[in-house]
Amino acid sequence: MASIAHELAKNQKEISVSEFFEKNKQILGFDSLTRALITSVKETVDNSLDACEDASILPEILVKIEKMDNTEYKLTEEDNGPGIVKAQVPNVFARLLYGSRFHTRAQRRGQQGIGVSAVVMYSQLTTGKAATVRSKISDEDTAYECDLILDTKKNRPERLREDRVIWDREHGTSIQVHLKGKYMGGKQSVFEYLKGTAIVNPHAKITFVPPEGVPIVFERASDQVPPPTKPVMPHPEGVELGELLSMAKYTESLKMTSFLSSEFSRISNRVAKEVCELAGVPPEQRPTKLTLEQAGAVLEAMKKVRIMAPETDCLSPIGETLIRKGLKNVLGDVKAEFYAPPITREPKVFAGNPFIVEVGIVYGGELSKEEPVQILRFANRVPLMYQQGACATTQAIENVDWRRYGLEQRGGHGIPFGPAIIMVHLASTKIPFTSESKEAVANIPEIKEEIELALKACARRLKTHLNKAEKKSKAKVKFEIVQDIIPMIAEKSAKIVGKPVPELSGTITKIMNVVWIDDEVSYEKKRHHVLVRIYNYTPKSQGFHLHMVVPFDKIDPKSLELQPLEVRDGNKVTWDIKRVSSTEEFQLKFDLTGLSQEEYGENEVYVSGIDAASVIGVDVLPGDWDLEHLKITGELPVDEGAAAEEGEEEDVDYDEGAEVIKDEE
Amino acid sequence: MASIAHELAKNQKEISVSEFFEKNKQILGFDSLTRALITSVKETVDNSLDACEDASILPEILVKIEKMDNTEYKLTEEDNGPGIVKAQVPNVFARLLYGSRFHTRAQRRGQQGIGVSAVVMYSQLTTGKAATVRSKISDEDTAYECDLILDTKKNRPERLREDRVIWDREHGTSIQVHLKGKYMGGKQSVFEYLKGTAIVNPHAKITFVPPEGVPIVFERASDQVPPPTKPVMPHPEGVELGELLSMAKYTESLKMTSFLSSEFSRISNRVAKEVCELAGVPPEQRPTKLTLEQAGAVLEAMKKVRIMAPETDCLSPIGETLIRKGLKNVLGDVKAEFYAPPITREPKVFAGNPFIVEVGIVYGGELSKEEPVQILRFANRVPLMYQQGACATTQAIENVDWRRYGLEQRGGHGIPFGPAIIMVHLASTKIPFTSESKEAVANIPEIKEEIELALKACARRLKTHLNKAEKKSKAKVKFEIVQDIIPMIAEKSAKIVGKPVPELSGTITKIMNVVWIDDEVSYEKKRHHVLVRIYNYTPKSQGFHLHMVVPFDKIDPKSLELQPLEVRDGNKVTWDIKRVSSTEEFQLKFDLTGLSQEEYGENEVYVSGIDAASVIGVDVLPGDWDLEHLKITGELPVDEGAAAEEGEEEDVDYDEGAEVIKDEE
Repeated sequence: MASIAHELAKNQKEISVSEFFEKNKQILGFDSLTRALITSVKETVDNSLDACEDASILPEILVKIEKMDNTEYKLTEEDNGPGIVKAQVPNVFARLLYGSRFHTRAQRRGQQGIGVSAVVMYSQLTTGKAATVRSKISDEDTAYECDLILDTKKNRPERLREDRVIWDREHGTSIQVHLKGKYMGGKQSVFEYLKGTAIVNPHAKITFVPPEGVPIVFERASDQVPPPTKPVMPHPEGVELGELLSMAKYTESLKMTSFLSSEFSRISNRVAKEVCELAGVPPEQRPTKLTLEQAGAVLEAMKKVRIMAPETDCLSPIGETLIRKGLKNVLGDVKAEFYAPPITREPKVFAGNPFIVEVGIVYGGELSKEEPVQILRFANRVPLMYQQGACATTQAIENVDWRRYGLEQRGGHGIPFGPAIIMVHLASTKIPFTSESKEAVANIPEIKEEIELALKACARRLKTHLNKAEKKSKAKVKFEIVQDIIPMIAEKSAKIVGKPVPELSGTITKIMNVVWIDDEVSYEKKRHHVLVRIYNYTPKSQGFHLHMVVPFDKIDPKSLELQPLEVRDGNKVTWDIKRVSSTEEFQLKFDLTGLSQEEYGENEVYVSGIDAASVIGVDVLPGDWDLEHLKITGELPVDEGAAAEEGEEEDVDYDEGAEVIKDEE
Repeated sequence: MASIAHELAKNQKEISVSEFFEKNKQILGFDSLTRALITSVKETVDNSLDACEDASILPEILVKIEKMDNTEYKLTEEDNGPGIVKAQVPNVFARLLYGSRFHTRAQRRGQQGIGVSAVVMYSQLTTGKAATVRSKISDEDTAYECDLILDTKKNRPERLREDRVIWDREHGTSIQVHLKGKYMGGKQSVFEYLKGTAIVNPHAKITFVPPEGVPIVFERASDQVPPPTKPVMPHPEGVELGELLSMAKYTESLKMTSFLSSEFSRISNRVAKEVCELAGVPPEQRPTKLTLEQAGAVLEAMKKVRIMAPETDCLSPIGETLIRKGLKNVLGDVKAEFYAPPITREPKVFAGNPFIVEVGIVYGGELSKEEPVQILRFANRVPLMYQQGACATTQAIENVDWRRYGLEQRGGHGIPFGPAIIMVHLASTKIPFTSESKEAVANIPEIKEEIELALKACARRLKTHLNKAEKKSKAKVKFEIVQDIIPMIAEKSAKIVGKPVPELSGTITKIMNVVWIDDEVSYEKKRHHVLVRIYNYTPKSQGFHLHMVVPFDKIDPKSLELQPLEVRDGNKVTWDIKRVSSTEEFQLKFDLTGLSQEEYGENEVYVSGIDAASVIGVDVLPGDWDLEHLKITGELPVDEGAAAEEGEEEDVDYDEGAEVIKDEE
């Protein structure tokens, strides 16, 4: 037995991190030939986008794929980023766990220091060939170029060749690798990854030269570099005991108060004192002397003291317009019926990292009713293409009872069926991926809960639309029946009694006894035509207020006949409908200009000053413009998170906290 | 711009592997409190089972969980393995990427050198406390004990205390950690993990002391240590070019032929020569001189030369009995209708690693018809509890069109609905997990294809059962109608014509004109009662052969009245049914003893020597006992893989290659 223990001991040895991943390349996203190629493109492009953002450069990216033989491809990727100084090139491209973004809490695509070196490693593993990297920084005349391999036994770069070369760029980086892969079309493809990337990064210009050779250019849709997201200190929420101890051990601060206030976000000197007092730790104590018990007390105290929600300027959500664009892109030529107004939640925190969840849903029209809904996932503006089943996003979708919101779902769990696409974006200073291949978000309870809340909030908007559509269609059916049957009865009765058929409009009016409001929006020649029809099917004249949510500055003044009574917040417009006589019709018409088709898809019409029961087709204004998805300015209620949680299980009732969208400054 | 490149360069630095995983603990399976506890148990128990197997010891394992406060638990895990020599204890338990199993190709639970050190790291991160490890090897009188932490900045162990202590074990290892977690019941729980582990490792005795304190003992069901699985050299199939170059660079062999034959499995000296010749590489060349072009040629040559399928003694499938037991365990008290005979596929290879896929399905009875089927996943005898959606197993299940096999499945893809449990086991010298948490198998095309083939093969057995059940029920309905209606017609007619009701059995016989065979099996008092009823509803006497697949040595001789004509391979039994007169019935009866209930669930009955059209209830023997799931001895057809692939899309036709089970020696 002893000899066995000794025997086994002989085999115990260190495993180089590169050897580990060389033998487990599937963990890095190289599990199949198709995916290997997509992963390689993704890692290089994500790197380029991050580099450009770091330097506030409008990205110009080239991706070129050439077919060398049956399974070998040459991938060239090039950017106009700031370049990489010569000394760092080998480490950045041919050494795993080396990088600049791991140690900072900031919203970046790459956060691991693995990606691009993994591409180099996969390339040499499958083709035996070195990678060629070229980089030019702007104060140098020539570019630095070298051929690199990764020595996997040591996890260190090896330079096979180096040179200085002329490059007609001011600055930038390029990489060229040969790798085993398979180039395919379809939903999971290089093309789709680049297209998705271009949509949520409208400031980037991406040129793609596929093996067939016809270049595709995704033009820049915006000349604005997104405001740089700032690195932040960890938020106290969710910080672990061991982490706190380790921070205290390595801090340069000499006092507990300065340690807490300088190394955590949202802890001021005053709050730090409060925490120390509550924890019974002397504020002047050296952090290095912090004991295990004290650290536990500090964590407890941080939970009790009121600490502000995390900063938002460290995060860059993609926003309503890009969510709609993303959905529109997936639709292609397929026409949808309804874009639910997207939800952007307030930032929350997990393990000290702020994050924001955004959700959009598009529904109906020509989308297939017989398939599971399509799911679109994004993390820090990167489209996630693989491992859908492993993603917290998918699991959150499966947890929602979509039957409540008008989608089919057997048993009330699982991916629902129906004509819908659901898009989820997670932005965070740290995306907790399930693996180094960065394709699925781990099942962190805080994140999953936020995604569920966002999904439910957006689903309620869908449900409101479906309810409205259903109500309208029911009223229409009733109306049509009345209009069909009364004349028939009249005709038959007249025949029987041998009298002429009487005039019926008054009778129909009496039977219906409603104000019928119908609205439609159509789009042609870059104009939205909005038409609201008001029919008075009551025996007397009616007057009331009509309210619409519509961007007033986009209304073509020439198209608007009836001037509004009031315009609030630029988009809450009220008209005074003074008088519509019995059996008469009134039309409110106007055109919108300067909006893309998907930016205005459905009218939101309300009335007030009239009995709710006598109006069909629209709802009465709930409260004083306190509508669901109007932008509410000013401060949010402090405990909105709690309110949202409580309300989450209710169906179409609005849960205020979850629905409010704060104006971004 | 240049200053930016230089500025960015300053932040470029190395990331310690421990820091990486500390910040990405979700990758290691610590994404929620519940899972953190399960992962910790799993990593320690898997380690213990591997250690015992390495030393051919019957494992005795203790797992104890104590609740310390609201979220803190103390986990103690102990084994009777060979122990670990003192010098190795710190590295084994508190250093990531360190171990004995990474560099060998052998079927082991742990293959990464991460697991148990990750538990120690998570423990200190969440509670700030050190782990206590104790180990005793049998030639020492006392055990070595130490308190360990992992210095994550350096990825090295730090010993806080060490001692020698008295331990009343001959040899073994124990570990004690404090960690943040949540103890829960349900499908994903420590209890279920241990139960699943005990079932597929029947040679292990596992004692579990949960926080509630009442110990649960999973007793050993077998005293046989499974035969040790041997480490193997890589099989040439799927070896990458870069890997071959690297092997050639580091080999101790001096000639290409000896290099190939000594470092690859299934390459003899003769085959090595053949490969070199075909590749145009001199057999005497030094491997270190192998060029990129030559390496490519060698790989191509290895594809062309006929190389044997991988050895099987490096793998340990769990086998039919344990698959049934695993399924039975999930069922609990729920009764099922049918256990499809499990499939064990022949070994295949991915990236040089041999692997075997096994599949079992249980169907019907009290299982819910309204839920998705339950999926049970195992890898190298470890139950997989999380990330089901990410697993190649699940994706293979989703890819099969289960509507063909009698399960509901909308659109023919996705997880089917219906009263079934599907179990899949993957055994390999290297399980390609999607992440270090080892919960999901990556989407390796070779593996997914094998799983799909195994699923389809097993599903066909289910379908055969369902077809048979349906045929029988239809024939029964017809028979009952005839038996009900004919007497009624006779009675009415007799009344009308004023005559007595005639004797009808002859008439019914003439109308039916079939031999009706009905079989049943019941289980009580540890005996299976088998009854086959033969009714002759034809106008003349009938004689034929009746065949059953039944383990003949389990038939109680006293219960068997009619001796068989022949017994082949121990389980193919033929009786001569000499003569059953018209309108008579004959019963064949016997009892089976010594089988557990699930080991014999359904009779397989065939006939021969009679016209197929005149028999209802059983099929005619297809060919000469060339039945689907009989064990076929002797050599397999060489190209059975290809045959299987071709046949895979056909429905209930048997695809020989896929179905054959080779006797294990």
